[in-house]
Amino acid sequence: MDYRLELQRALDAARPVLGTGRVADYIPALGAADPHAFGLALATVDGEVHGVGDWETQFSIQSISKLFTLALALASEEALALWHRVGREPSGTPFNSLIQLEAEQGIPRNPFINAGAVVVTDRLLSLTGDAAGAVREFLRAESGNPRLDTDLAVAASEAQHGHRNAALAHFIASYDNLENPVEAVLGHYYAHCAIAASCRDLALAGLFLARHGLRADGSRLLSRSDAKRINAVLLTCGTYDAAGDFAYRVGLPGKSGVGGGILAVVPGRGTLCAWGPALDRAGNSVGAVTALDAFTTNTGWSVF
Amino acid sequence: MDYRLELQRALDAARPVLGTGRVADYIPALGAADPHAFGLALATVDGEVHGVGDWETQFSIQSISKLFTLALALASEEALALWHRVGREPSGTPFNSLIQLEAEQGIPRNPFINAGAVVVTDRLLSLTGDAAGAVREFLRAESGNPRLDTDLAVAASEAQHGHRNAALAHFIASYDNLENPVEAVLGHYYAHCAIAASCRDLALAGLFLARHGLRADGSRLLSRSDAKRINAVLLTCGTYDAAGDFAYRVGLPGKSGVGGGILAVVPGRGTLCAWGPALDRAGNSVGAVTALDAFTTNTGWSVF
Amino acid sequence: MDYRLELQRALDAARPVLGTGRVADYIPALGAADPHAFGLALATVDGEVHGVGDWETQFSIQSISKLFTLALALASEEALALWHRVGREPSGTPFNSLIQLEAEQGIPRNPFINAGAVVVTDRLLSLTGDAAGAVREFLRAESGNPRLDTDLAVAASEAQHGHRNAALAHFIASYDNLENPVEAVLGHYYAHCAIAASCRDLALAGLFLARHGLRADGSRLLSRSDAKRINAVLLTCGTYDAAGDFAYRVGLPGKSGVGGGILAVVPGRGTLCAWGPALDRAGNSVGAVTALDAFTTNTGWSVF
Amino acid sequence: MDYRLELQRALDAARPVLGTGRVADYIPALGAADPHAFGLALATVDGEVHGVGDWETQFSIQSISKLFTLALALASEEALALWHRVGREPSGTPFNSLIQLEAEQGIPRNPFINAGAVVVTDRLLSLTGDAAGAVREFLRAESGNPRLDTDLAVAASEAQHGHRNAALAHFIASYDNLENPVEAVLGHYYAHCAIAASCRDLALAGLFLARHGLRADGSRLLSRSDAKRINAVLLTCGTYDAAGDFAYRVGLPGKSGVGGGILAVVPGRGTLCAWGPALDRAGNSVGAVTALDAFTTNTGWSVF
Repeated sequence: MDYRLELQRALDAARPVLGTGRVADYIPALGAADPHAFGLALATVDGEVHGVGDWETQFSIQSISKLFTLALALASEEALALWHRVGREPSGTPFNSLIQLEAEQGIPRNPFINAGAVVVTDRLLSLTGDAAGAVREFLRAESGNPRLDTDLAVAASEAQHGHRNAALAHFIASYDNLENPVEAVLGHYYAHCAIAASCRDLALAGLFLARHGLRADGSRLLSRSDAKRINAVLLTCGTYDAAGDFAYRVGLPGKSGVGGGILAVVPGRGTLCAWGPALDRAGNSVGAVTALDAFTTNTGWSVF
Repeated sequence: MDYRLELQRALDAARPVLGTGRVADYIPALGAADPHAFGLALATVDGEVHGVGDWETQFSIQSISKLFTLALALASEEALALWHRVGREPSGTPFNSLIQLEAEQGIPRNPFINAGAVVVTDRLLSLTGDAAGAVREFLRAESGNPRLDTDLAVAASEAQHGHRNAALAHFIASYDNLENPVEAVLGHYYAHCAIAASCRDLALAGLFLARHGLRADGSRLLSRSDAKRINAVLLTCGTYDAAGDFAYRVGLPGKSGVGGGILAVVPGRGTLCAWGPALDRAGNSVGAVTALDAFTTNTGWSVF
Repeated sequence: MDYRLELQRALDAARPVLGTGRVADYIPALGAADPHAFGLALATVDGEVHGVGDWETQFSIQSISKLFTLALALASEEALALWHRVGREPSGTPFNSLIQLEAEQGIPRNPFINAGAVVVTDRLLSLTGDAAGAVREFLRAESGNPRLDTDLAVAASEAQHGHRNAALAHFIASYDNLENPVEAVLGHYYAHCAIAASCRDLALAGLFLARHGLRADGSRLLSRSDAKRINAVLLTCGTYDAAGDFAYRVGLPGKSGVGGGILAVVPGRGTLCAWGPALDRAGNSVGAVTALDAFTTNTGWSVF
Repeated sequence: MDYRLELQRALDAARPVLGTGRVADYIPALGAADPHAFGLALATVDGEVHGVGDWETQFSIQSISKLFTLALALASEEALALWHRVGREPSGTPFNSLIQLEAEQGIPRNPFINAGAVVVTDRLLSLTGDAAGAVREFLRAESGNPRLDTDLAVAASEAQHGHRNAALAHFIASYDNLENPVEAVLGHYYAHCAIAASCRDLALAGLFLARHGLRADGSRLLSRSDAKRINAVLLTCGTYDAAGDFAYRVGLPGKSGVGGGILAVVPGRGTLCAWGPALDRAGNSVGAVTALDAFTTNTGWSVF
């Protein structure tokens, strides 16, 4: 396969829809993104990295960080306990909904809705003492980009407009499902969501899932089974309330963020990271989904 | 791979849990099943068929029939319209719930919850004039078992105890999302759910999904894309409100029924059908999930 | 108090809003009503009857019949059992919602939402053998209008468009909370809802609640306590999902119907029945609520 | 009527059920209450005050304070705006639920569920600069008890265990329905809920609702209409998710608190305040409801 050609074809497929949808504007820092920006990167398990468009431009990774917090928490030896505190079923409701959380007594449905990510962040904070720092260092090491960091303005803005996340965290705490103080957990949550990275950085950082658990340096982060399992949770829960549609169209495990990025995994082969700031109603990038749909349709790279 | 050895290992893994859980007893005909019965069959795209345990015993396929109604409806040329009448997102609520149906104005969340299957059955009835007959003939042709048929006692019993399904169907009709009379649609729905088949029959009948849309006789039922897409919907929605857990443990597209069967697809390789009547709380067979989990863990046959 | 003057003042208050809102049009027979029609009747415990506007015009009483089915069911000696099958709490959801019914396992929240009225009709059918006939005969006797009857065209039309009520009834039956066949219960339900009566007829027929349980002929239908209790249920649950607002504005127990009528009770004093076909979003007559609000504000006739 | 005799009869009726139910124990200070304690006070518009049992013992008024915050907020000239920020319909869900709040976009259903009381407290804080102080001063003036005050230990304990209320407040803030900082609003909320008062104090303090808006000193707090309207909201929403049952049994407007108190209004006649710490599942005092039920049944003092 000519990777660069296929990336270009995917970009061409996405071009007509760029700007369709709505840039997340609940905080000013995100609202300033250019709705016509677009990047797409491919990293293979063989070490190749390619990209088209704005693939080296940094953007706010937002919920894509949840993939890494989950992996790092599961990499600890006490990981099994995590699944008593958070489920792994699709939620059927928006990513920041409180409804299901009440019906299910403070146990978030899965690690990728906001409530679940708060619980995973809490666990990672207990395990490491610095949840956001652990994510940042992991991303730096895997991407080889030592300047990758939290955008402090974004983190501060998230905190300032974060009443709904504060509600979720206090609600979880009311069910005794937090180990650390609400304020500390939210601080780390905002800090890892506000990391800025490029398509290139994220494609490289996600390769451990394509390599069945192995990091860039060959060391093992996760067992083969756990890597497979994270892919399963990504496929069923990784793209907000549109996971079914994403599986139907793209057919790959993936994690999206309201910054417009989507990181997708092709087990055994590599990763794709697409970015376009304009979002559909479910909160997924219109351009990124379109490009990934085209890429997998053209190449047959799908898990199905 | 020594298929028979792997099947035997999977059966051995399931043996300790056989009888754990609860046989569906909302109708007498199902309640009479032996909770310790167990069968497992494997069919490959190369034409091999193997089985262990009670793999040639007939059981009530129940919701597994929803996979075939969907495939047959999508195989028609007017299939695209179907996705306006039924969604493809995981539901997050029990398979026979009315709550989501009301919130979403009569559009069932996906084709595999009861409400969605009623809509698909309605469509197939319009397309063929005999929805249950179409499913039966397809299963006979693919399995090569000409005596495969609806168990009329089961169908009659379902209808007699079917107030909740009648409620779903009338509710859907109240949103103008049925083309045929409620009674006719329900009649076909009960008839295809009450088909009796063996693990062997179902493994063979499901092979078109492993063969990317090709039937046993080599003719094409579905496009490659549509076959891939049905697998995606199976993975995200095929095992009731435990699709996330099934993906996590087994990692294959699959469809379960309250008769205790689960039909799973290994794209490009083959199918597995496991059967054990005792169900977990989500309505999936405890023995079948355990056996499939063991098989995929031992063999690495997973989509992730 | 000059009753005729106060009725006229109330009519004057309502006149500007007549036609505001929307005539119920889910069946043709109701949709044909004149949105500018308006009537208001007053009946006192002393035997006076007055009216203004179209107070002697017949209209479809619809849900107002639920007040009478409840009273007649409670008048039987086995009445206490009824409160195990239906609650008496406000519902917080629309009158024909299935959501709460599922959350509460087939026990309708109160006798005045559709689901609750189906259960009460079922009970009255068991008690009398002819639920709709019992309501009709009671209304004839109390109003002194021997020609008062079910509008068969309306009843037939309700049945034809009644998929949502059929869904409710089947759903209740799925929880074993119906004693009679779904079709029989629905037939009686539609027949008593389709009774046509005038403001005059209904004001007279409701007087037993102002007389603490005594019928027009002086015989006792209900104990003083039970009459008081029906008034309490009317106040908290009688005007669909706007009972709080009706209590706030009008301050009287009352029952509304989508035909545009509202029957209100002034305990110890009398009854008021207002009618105007155009409805607000909760399903209550805009003109009738406005007139009753004006009447109670001007006269101080309120329970508070 | 011999008031003391009727109070004694009501106490006698309640005695057998004292201790039935469960003392609120989510904070230690409440959990220490004696489940067999019981008091009942009556204050009439003519100036009589009577009591039986522990009617002069102080207890934590908890949600009964919500009645006073509402009255004081409505007494301001800008009161109409309040009804755009909080509804007046019964909720149909538990008093501290977040579900309805999400469905209704941050507008609490009524002023007496926790979410609604947070909004009213926020408004009163804006109007007065000291919401808890305003409630305290009003209660002191009306009861003539200058030592009546917030129990600081209870308030501190509420704050410490108040994750669910913090979740509600942040959630409301996320819909821009708070004017003051979350922490400030919650501080005042806990402070007025933690006021300690006796049955005697509360019966006197509530008399303005029986006097159609007039305070103890003859000055007008509320218009006649507004007093009537608060009574209406009390009747439909004042006793948590059991307002329908309370109306059915007692037939009076009333407000309950998890401290075990219930303050009821007999418009034009007087007030009753009953107290017993053991609560039913809805959060209302078993003894207080029983005593009020007996009193109104024996005396005919009911609004119906």
